[in-house]
Amino acid sequence: MQDINVALVGHRFMGKAHTHAYRDVNLFFPSVPYRPRLKVIAGRDPAAVQEAADLLGWEESSTDWQEAVTRDDIDLVDVATPNYLHADVAITAAEAGKQVICEKPLAVTVPQARAMVAAVEKAGVRNTICFHFRRYPAVRLARKLIEDGELGDIYHFRGWFLAERFADPATPLGWRMQQELAGFGVFGDLGSHVLDIARFLLGDVRSVCGNFATYIKERPTPEGGSGTVTVDDCAQVLMQFANGAQGILEVTKLARGNKNNFGFEVNGSKGSIRFYFERLNELQYYCGDDPGPLTGFRTIHASDSVQHDYMHGYWPAAAHSIGYGEAFIHIVKDFLEALGSGEPMSPDFVDGLRVQEIMEAVGTSVQDRGWADVASPG
Amino acid sequence: MQDINVALVGHRFMGKAHTHAYRDVNLFFPSVPYRPRLKVIAGRDPAAVQEAADLLGWEESSTDWQEAVTRDDIDLVDVATPNYLHADVAITAAEAGKQVICEKPLAVTVPQARAMVAAVEKAGVRNTICFHFRRYPAVRLARKLIEDGELGDIYHFRGWFLAERFADPATPLGWRMQQELAGFGVFGDLGSHVLDIARFLLGDVRSVCGNFATYIKERPTPEGGSGTVTVDDCAQVLMQFANGAQGILEVTKLARGNKNNFGFEVNGSKGSIRFYFERLNELQYYCGDDPGPLTGFRTIHASDSVQHDYMHGYWPAAAHSIGYGEAFIHIVKDFLEALGSGEPMSPDFVDGLRVQEIMEAVGTSVQDRGWADVASPG
Amino acid sequence: MQDINVALVGHRFMGKAHTHAYRDVNLFFPSVPYRPRLKVIAGRDPAAVQEAADLLGWEESSTDWQEAVTRDDIDLVDVATPNYLHADVAITAAEAGKQVICEKPLAVTVPQARAMVAAVEKAGVRNTICFHFRRYPAVRLARKLIEDGELGDIYHFRGWFLAERFADPATPLGWRMQQELAGFGVFGDLGSHVLDIARFLLGDVRSVCGNFATYIKERPTPEGGSGTVTVDDCAQVLMQFANGAQGILEVTKLARGNKNNFGFEVNGSKGSIRFYFERLNELQYYCGDDPGPLTGFRTIHASDSVQHDYMHGYWPAAAHSIGYGEAFIHIVKDFLEALGSGEPMSPDFVDGLRVQEIMEAVGTSVQDRGWADVASPG
Amino acid sequence: MQDINVALVGHRFMGKAHTHAYRDVNLFFPSVPYRPRLKVIAGRDPAAVQEAADLLGWEESSTDWQEAVTRDDIDLVDVATPNYLHADVAITAAEAGKQVICEKPLAVTVPQARAMVAAVEKAGVRNTICFHFRRYPAVRLARKLIEDGELGDIYHFRGWFLAERFADPATPLGWRMQQELAGFGVFGDLGSHVLDIARFLLGDVRSVCGNFATYIKERPTPEGGSGTVTVDDCAQVLMQFANGAQGILEVTKLARGNKNNFGFEVNGSKGSIRFYFERLNELQYYCGDDPGPLTGFRTIHASDSVQHDYMHGYWPAAAHSIGYGEAFIHIVKDFLEALGSGEPMSPDFVDGLRVQEIMEAVGTSVQDRGWADVASPG
Repeated sequence: MQDINVALVGHRFMGKAHTHAYRDVNLFFPSVPYRPRLKVIAGRDPAAVQEAADLLGWEESSTDWQEAVTRDDIDLVDVATPNYLHADVAITAAEAGKQVICEKPLAVTVPQARAMVAAVEKAGVRNTICFHFRRYPAVRLARKLIEDGELGDIYHFRGWFLAERFADPATPLGWRMQQELAGFGVFGDLGSHVLDIARFLLGDVRSVCGNFATYIKERPTPEGGSGTVTVDDCAQVLMQFANGAQGILEVTKLARGNKNNFGFEVNGSKGSIRFYFERLNELQYYCGDDPGPLTGFRTIHASDSVQHDYMHGYWPAAAHSIGYGEAFIHIVKDFLEALGSGEPMSPDFVDGLRVQEIMEAVGTSVQDRGWADVASPG
Repeated sequence: MQDINVALVGHRFMGKAHTHAYRDVNLFFPSVPYRPRLKVIAGRDPAAVQEAADLLGWEESSTDWQEAVTRDDIDLVDVATPNYLHADVAITAAEAGKQVICEKPLAVTVPQARAMVAAVEKAGVRNTICFHFRRYPAVRLARKLIEDGELGDIYHFRGWFLAERFADPATPLGWRMQQELAGFGVFGDLGSHVLDIARFLLGDVRSVCGNFATYIKERPTPEGGSGTVTVDDCAQVLMQFANGAQGILEVTKLARGNKNNFGFEVNGSKGSIRFYFERLNELQYYCGDDPGPLTGFRTIHASDSVQHDYMHGYWPAAAHSIGYGEAFIHIVKDFLEALGSGEPMSPDFVDGLRVQEIMEAVGTSVQDRGWADVASPG
Repeated sequence: MQDINVALVGHRFMGKAHTHAYRDVNLFFPSVPYRPRLKVIAGRDPAAVQEAADLLGWEESSTDWQEAVTRDDIDLVDVATPNYLHADVAITAAEAGKQVICEKPLAVTVPQARAMVAAVEKAGVRNTICFHFRRYPAVRLARKLIEDGELGDIYHFRGWFLAERFADPATPLGWRMQQELAGFGVFGDLGSHVLDIARFLLGDVRSVCGNFATYIKERPTPEGGSGTVTVDDCAQVLMQFANGAQGILEVTKLARGNKNNFGFEVNGSKGSIRFYFERLNELQYYCGDDPGPLTGFRTIHASDSVQHDYMHGYWPAAAHSIGYGEAFIHIVKDFLEALGSGEPMSPDFVDGLRVQEIMEAVGTSVQDRGWADVASPG
Repeated sequence: MQDINVALVGHRFMGKAHTHAYRDVNLFFPSVPYRPRLKVIAGRDPAAVQEAADLLGWEESSTDWQEAVTRDDIDLVDVATPNYLHADVAITAAEAGKQVICEKPLAVTVPQARAMVAAVEKAGVRNTICFHFRRYPAVRLARKLIEDGELGDIYHFRGWFLAERFADPATPLGWRMQQELAGFGVFGDLGSHVLDIARFLLGDVRSVCGNFATYIKERPTPEGGSGTVTVDDCAQVLMQFANGAQGILEVTKLARGNKNNFGFEVNGSKGSIRFYFERLNELQYYCGDDPGPLTGFRTIHASDSVQHDYMHGYWPAAAHSIGYGEAFIHIVKDFLEALGSGEPMSPDFVDGLRVQEIMEAVGTSVQDRGWADVASPG
């Protein structure tokens, strides 16, 4: 097995989640052809980033991300910064010939996202975007059922991400609440996940019609004053898919009691599926072929070590649940395998751009109070 | 206790459901001030309506609804016909000075609905519309929590009615699939229920934006040929409420595995509720005041004979579930009590008209591919 | 259709539940060959029983149950008294040649139960016992799956009835808490239900080993003093079935939050089922033949008007839930049909006796602190 | 932070689970005072153990466990062998002055378990036993609610572990099915978990009465013949706790559809809890103080990074689920912290012995077909 040297930019929530993945991927998936080496972690605050390096196990820390991501000994750059820096870091890394893993959403604007795609294509480097919801066994099973035609023609998609993280008006104004740093608000943060899953399961979105609201308009600043929230804190969107299906999407951070309520349902002419992230090991499946009086949604614990994607890497038998963190191990596993085999990696920056284009169309539809078409793929 | 003589027009599903209510209301709610007498049931087919009279326990049958609803000995007319006849029957009954109970939706068009409201107002007769979902104890508890401020400011409403009744393309073309007889399709049939509950819980809707589709466009006719479905078989709608909340609505009869999946969720600044009709005795409630580590949705079995609306009429203690049919008993109970006391009955024809106006606005929004305002209440 | 004249002894909870059944059975099941006429209701307190007659719709009331149940014009006697009177009333009725419906448990002691069986056999009258849990569509489906061999060889039964009705120490001492009036305590009241379902699903019980406790030993009396609870308020029992399966049973009225938590699970070599009465319309079914990654318990809403027992009598399509009260309609329906056809009625007094014999064996096992054999049938 | 050198005996399922814990404990819990170094892994088959060393990341492999666990550079010995070797390895390690972590159940017999306790006490080494179910946040919350008196006086415990791992008669005869190697069968393997949780939540067990069965008596051997299962493949047990509560326990590996269905419920005079391992992040809690109509079990996602035990180590906010593997991280975390602080570690070998003594009493009760007392703690 070959070493692959990693530089990570960003050292908070996602920095830790990605570090965990690099540290554990070879333990659970020993057939992966590379062994990640945690070379350097970069951040703005020297003390904080050095502390992160110590706690997470990185060989060095750096406050100069440009230098870190372009170092000769670095093979792979991981972009886990706030959204507005994704483009700069990823393009710099690509131009230096590094493989790139980027957090979602790909960028703050469509032009940024297009520049990122252009950069990785020009440099010919491999790339992926961390839409982690694709990487749970239950979600993979959902996709497989659709691909295999088990649901028949697809009629309906409903996806949502409901949380209560901003429900307290005392929650301070952060970068996620400012238009120039985050692009969209909750819609960009949570909605991009739902849109990626919608594309993963049903394919491209043709047109959209959205509604935004900002219920809590003023929030305290860390400096003791108060500031204005310049983005949405919830969104609802109607969608038309290229395959003819209709979809609805809802995201909010103001839904009390919804701890981390991401989910989706798909109905087709032959069957239906339901996924609820707070029970991430389970998929509900309705098989239209079930006989006579015995029809009902099955609660599948998608954790059988033989039957379900990824689960052979963990524990024998079934219902040894995995957690949220494992999805990042799966991203790294799949990316390292794609690097080794030369096979395509999905999602890549182009997928990230497509999500960005849908988001842009939603923004347009909100302004125009009507439907907007999504830019058609190149 | 006084007798009240009833004429029922319609003798199928709803005819039976309403008959059950008249027969049982005094057993479960002996304090109701009237005892319904099942005088006459009217329908088109003489044999069928006579058979219904025998089976359901009506004293007489009739094929002349005009005569039946205007008879001197009739006090109360119950309209359980196909939608396109609601206006004719209800207006005739009102003009004859009868109290009127009408199935939902109120009418096929807004002008029809307005005429119905005008007729009952001119005649000064009491009236109600059978939005039965309002009459379950769990739904009453939902409303009470909102009214009492337990959810705080309301941010989000999501309501749906998903079924699979039309999923089989061999299901024949019925009056519900023809625009001139039904007005709207699935949206009119199922969506009117969701809109009434939305209004019951959150109040008036200001503006809407909808999307319709018809996936199964041709269906066999009872005569052996085939015909075109001229209405929607699913709909999604974005809503803005007068109180500032945002809502989404989805209805379909093509969602495999969804046997009778009506439901709603409401999120406010202090708490949340969830209701799923397939478990109609339960309300999920999240109380934002619950302490520290002990927060979570409570599954309330809303069936305590002391604590929950209507349940004193049935069995002691709790979790002696009631069924679908009981909601119609509650409609009749509340209407007879309102007759006796002179207190307002809710919902009445005006509520039915409001739902019709929202539906009309949705129709406009679908045609214009953008938001439409709902006609403002008089 | 012929009239059948009913005398009902008892006018409280069960009196009302049975009355409801007599009143509604012809509406929902018009093919039943008899029409019950509510002739006379009997009870001890003249004012209370007359009030019950008025509220429930009985033609007459009586304080002389002997006279009422032996009247020439009475065809059917319904025993809904406290347990200690079951034997007297039922035997008197049988000796007068009346058909008999008796509430559960059949009696307070095995000798009483044997005398009741002897009386109905000698008189040649039809009889049944109101183990209502057998009469839900979901429970019938459970039995059918077992009978059809869909679960394979049966290994495990677990049944329970957990409630909190006695959890408050201020709940007064009633007849159910006194050994001489009730026989057993919670075990007799709730345990008899579980034992009947165990027999219904798996057949006879060979031997048992039980454990009783009385946690709240003193309770206030209605007269203002206090008295001693002389029966169990909870019980756990191990069971060996004649078919080789093993079972466990638990009943209590001290389980906070358990509103009416009757349920059972059965595991066999090919599949499993689960039933939870608080969601009485649902059966969970695990089919061992489901393919590869798609295994899981199906939540079957056992309410399809075509597919599920009894549901053709109610509403079209599926998931129009029924409630607790409907089970009594089904008892009356099945009994009237058995009367008409001469086919056997199950359960009958012999089934009630078998349950009584198991209960007696449990009592013995508790005293002896070890296993006890159940008296073998005839 | 100091290094602590580990020798691990056993390299299959538990070997991997424990390795994962040593590798990740410092990442998630950086305040732990030791950093485990994976020095040597021991096993019987030289090729297999070397492969395990490579895959799992151990510095060396060994086929001489005696040598490995007594090496001077080893601080901590981890016993993850089949049950019949626990005593030998643990005693050897203790006598060499090593701290010991041992898989459950502690031993095959009570005398073995007593010898192990004597050995660690004589050597004065710290020790623990891997009853991992204690280490989930939801289970810790359950215990805290009981300790804080939130459930009041405890009346009922029901615990179970239902699986289907042996349901296929073709599953070969392994060491777990042979009396001399495993002690008990499924009861020893799964029942020990339930008994430990029972003690964790309610304290000591006074007396027991059990029932065993072996439904599949012959199984194929790996050599191509067939052999006899000499242990139980299911068990049911009644229990009396020292605190007066009553309990039931059931374990089986023949329950189709039960993938990994460990769980428990506790009812007290003030409230109740429910835990289902297939949804390991959730605790159901019924608070008897909830007001009037708003009572019901709350579904608590016990994953809040501030509110719930262990969760501060992972991800911000709530409902970022953890998986099965994390419990072993928590065992190592707590043990290393206890080593550093000198505070007691629970459970320790004495707890393992207590479970063994209850199991022995159950064995006696099965033979005697009656209740048996548990040996009282020294």
